[in-house]
Amino acid sequence: MGNPRLIALDWGTTSLRAYLFDAAGRIADRREAADGIQAIVDGRFREAFEALCAPWLASAPRIPAIASGMIGSRQGWREAAYLPTPAGFDEVAERLLTLDDAAGRRFRIVPGVSTLAANGTHDVIRGEETQVFGALSRLGATDLTVVLPGTHSKWVRVRDRRIVAFRTYLTGELFSVLSTHSILGRLFPAQGAQPTPAGDERAFADGVARAGADPAGITSLLFSVRAEGLFGRYDPGALPAYLSGLLIGAEVAHAAGDPIFADPSAPVALVGSTALVGRYRLALEQRGISVNVVQGVPAAEGLLAIARAARLLEPAQGATT
Amino acid sequence: MGNPRLIALDWGTTSLRAYLFDAAGRIADRREAADGIQAIVDGRFREAFEALCAPWLASAPRIPAIASGMIGSRQGWREAAYLPTPAGFDEVAERLLTLDDAAGRRFRIVPGVSTLAANGTHDVIRGEETQVFGALSRLGATDLTVVLPGTHSKWVRVRDRRIVAFRTYLTGELFSVLSTHSILGRLFPAQGAQPTPAGDERAFADGVARAGADPAGITSLLFSVRAEGLFGRYDPGALPAYLSGLLIGAEVAHAAGDPIFADPSAPVALVGSTALVGRYRLALEQRGISVNVVQGVPAAEGLLAIARAARLLEPAQGATT
Repeated sequence: MGNPRLIALDWGTTSLRAYLFDAAGRIADRREAADGIQAIVDGRFREAFEALCAPWLASAPRIPAIASGMIGSRQGWREAAYLPTPAGFDEVAERLLTLDDAAGRRFRIVPGVSTLAANGTHDVIRGEETQVFGALSRLGATDLTVVLPGTHSKWVRVRDRRIVAFRTYLTGELFSVLSTHSILGRLFPAQGAQPTPAGDERAFADGVARAGADPAGITSLLFSVRAEGLFGRYDPGALPAYLSGLLIGAEVAHAAGDPIFADPSAPVALVGSTALVGRYRLALEQRGISVNVVQGVPAAEGLLAIARAARLLEPAQGATT
Repeated sequence: MGNPRLIALDWGTTSLRAYLFDAAGRIADRREAADGIQAIVDGRFREAFEALCAPWLASAPRIPAIASGMIGSRQGWREAAYLPTPAGFDEVAERLLTLDDAAGRRFRIVPGVSTLAANGTHDVIRGEETQVFGALSRLGATDLTVVLPGTHSKWVRVRDRRIVAFRTYLTGELFSVLSTHSILGRLFPAQGAQPTPAGDERAFADGVARAGADPAGITSLLFSVRAEGLFGRYDPGALPAYLSGLLIGAEVAHAAGDPIFADPSAPVALVGSTALVGRYRLALEQRGISVNVVQGVPAAEGLLAIARAARLLEPAQGATT
C-alpha cells in the first residue's frame, strides 16, 4: 500500500469509515463497517478500530490516526469538548483531543464546534466541521456557504477559511418521524411501491414552491400532505416527495433569506453522497441559487488537512519509529 | 330526565361523548365511553351507540340523534362528504347525512367542511365546525376567529355566522412525535419527573418568543431544544415546555399574521378543555392578543343548534310518536 502515513476515521452514529492516506496525501485504501457508535457495546471502541484497520496496523503499527464525528460525543469513545466559532484549521488543530497514546500510536479526535446565534440559541456540529474543511481543501476556497443535507441538515458559513456561523435544520429527522409515526404517513404507499418519476418531481417542486412562498406556515403546510392526499391531487406514491419538498423548501427559504448564508461573495457548496443532495440542488436552483456539488470524500480530505495542520504526519517527538 | 328531545354525540377518533337534551335545550344527562371510532370492531357503530345510550333509548326509543366528528369520516360509520366553505348553520343543516332511519329513529351525521386556501392547498375540518357553531351559539356572536388547539390545531374564521376560511396546524402531533420518536425527546426526563412550574413557564415563554420572532425558522429552532439541553440552559424537566412554546409560538405568529384571522372586527375565542388552552392563551396574550375562552360544551351546543336548524327536534313527518 506504499508508504502509509495516516489513518482517517469518519466515525458517526451508524457507521465507521476508515481511510488510509499515503505520503502524497492520496487515499491508498479504504474500509467500512457498521460499527457506528450506537453499535459499540461496553465502550469497546478501540477493539472496533483495531479490528477494522487490522491489515493496515499490521504493516504500520505506529501510524497516527485521527477521527471525527459522534465518536467525540458524550456517547462516543471520549468527549471532545465543542470549540466555539470562529474556528479554522489552526484552532481545530490546536484543540485535538489526545486520546491515549500509551500504545505508542498517536490517536486524535477532532472536536465539534458550537456557536451562539444572533437569536440567542446555541447550535452544535460534530463531524460536519471536518467535511467543511475537506470541501475548502478540495475547492481551494476561502469563503463559502456549505450545505450538508442529512438527518440534521447544516448550513455552515466560512469566511477566510474559518467557520464563523452555522445553523442546523431538523429537516431529515422531521421527514423520517412524520413519515413513520404521524397521520401524514398513513396515506403513503407500502414500502416498495414505485412512484412515477414525473409525478414525484412535480410533487417535490410544488412542495418547495409552497413552503418557499410561506416558510413561516410550514407547520400548517405539513397538514396539506394529508389534505391533498384526501383530495387526490397527488398519487399516494408522490406524497413522500411532496412532504420532502415542503421541508426542504422551508429550510432553503429560511437559510437563503439570512444574509449570513446568502452572500454573493460566498458561493454555495453542497456536500453529501445521497440522493438528498440532488433534491437540495433542485430546491436551491428553484430559488435561483446555483450550487457546486463537492466531489470526492470531504470527511477524509478534511481529516487529512487537519492532521497536516496539527503536524500529525510528521514523526512524533521522541518517537523511535 | 324530564322530556328528552335529542341525543347529541361528539364521536371522535378516541372517544364517544353523548348528551341528552331536554325540550328547553338544557343538557339533562351525559354519558361517555372509550368507543372512539378507532376502538370499533367490524363496523359495530350502532351497537356502540345503543349500548352507551341504552337508558335514554329505553324511555324514548324514537328520540332523534345527531353526531359529529370522525364518525362521519371514511373510517367512521358512514362518510359524510365535506361541505365547502362558506358554510353556516343552514348549509350544514341542509346537508346532514341521513344514516338509516329504518328503525323509526332519525339519526343524522354532520358533514365536515373543506376549503381551498389562497395558496392553493386544500384543508379540512371534521367535528370542529360543530364546536365553532357551539361557540357562536353561546357567545351570540356573528364574527369570530375561533382557535381550537389539539393534535391538529385549527383556526376558523366566522363571518356573518358562516365559516368562511380555516387553517390547520400540525402543532400537537409534531409535539407528540418529536417528544416520543426524535432525538429531541432523548433529553426529556422520564415520565413522572416533575418540572418546576417557574422553570416550565420561563421555558415556554422563551419558546413562544423565539418562534414568534422567526416563525420561518421553526424547523431550525426545533434543534435548539437539543442544543439548549446540551448546554444546560433549561432543566431537562423544562425542555418539553420549551418545545411546546416553540411550536405554539410558530403557529400563533403565523396565524396572527394572516389578515383572515387577525381582524379587529372578529374577536378571538379559544375552544377546548385541556391544559393546552391555557398555553394558547399565554402565547396569544404574549403577542398582545386578548382571548375569550369559551365555556360550556361547545360540541354539544353546536349539535343542538344544528339540529334545531334542521328541525330535527320537531316530530318527523308521518311519525307516530
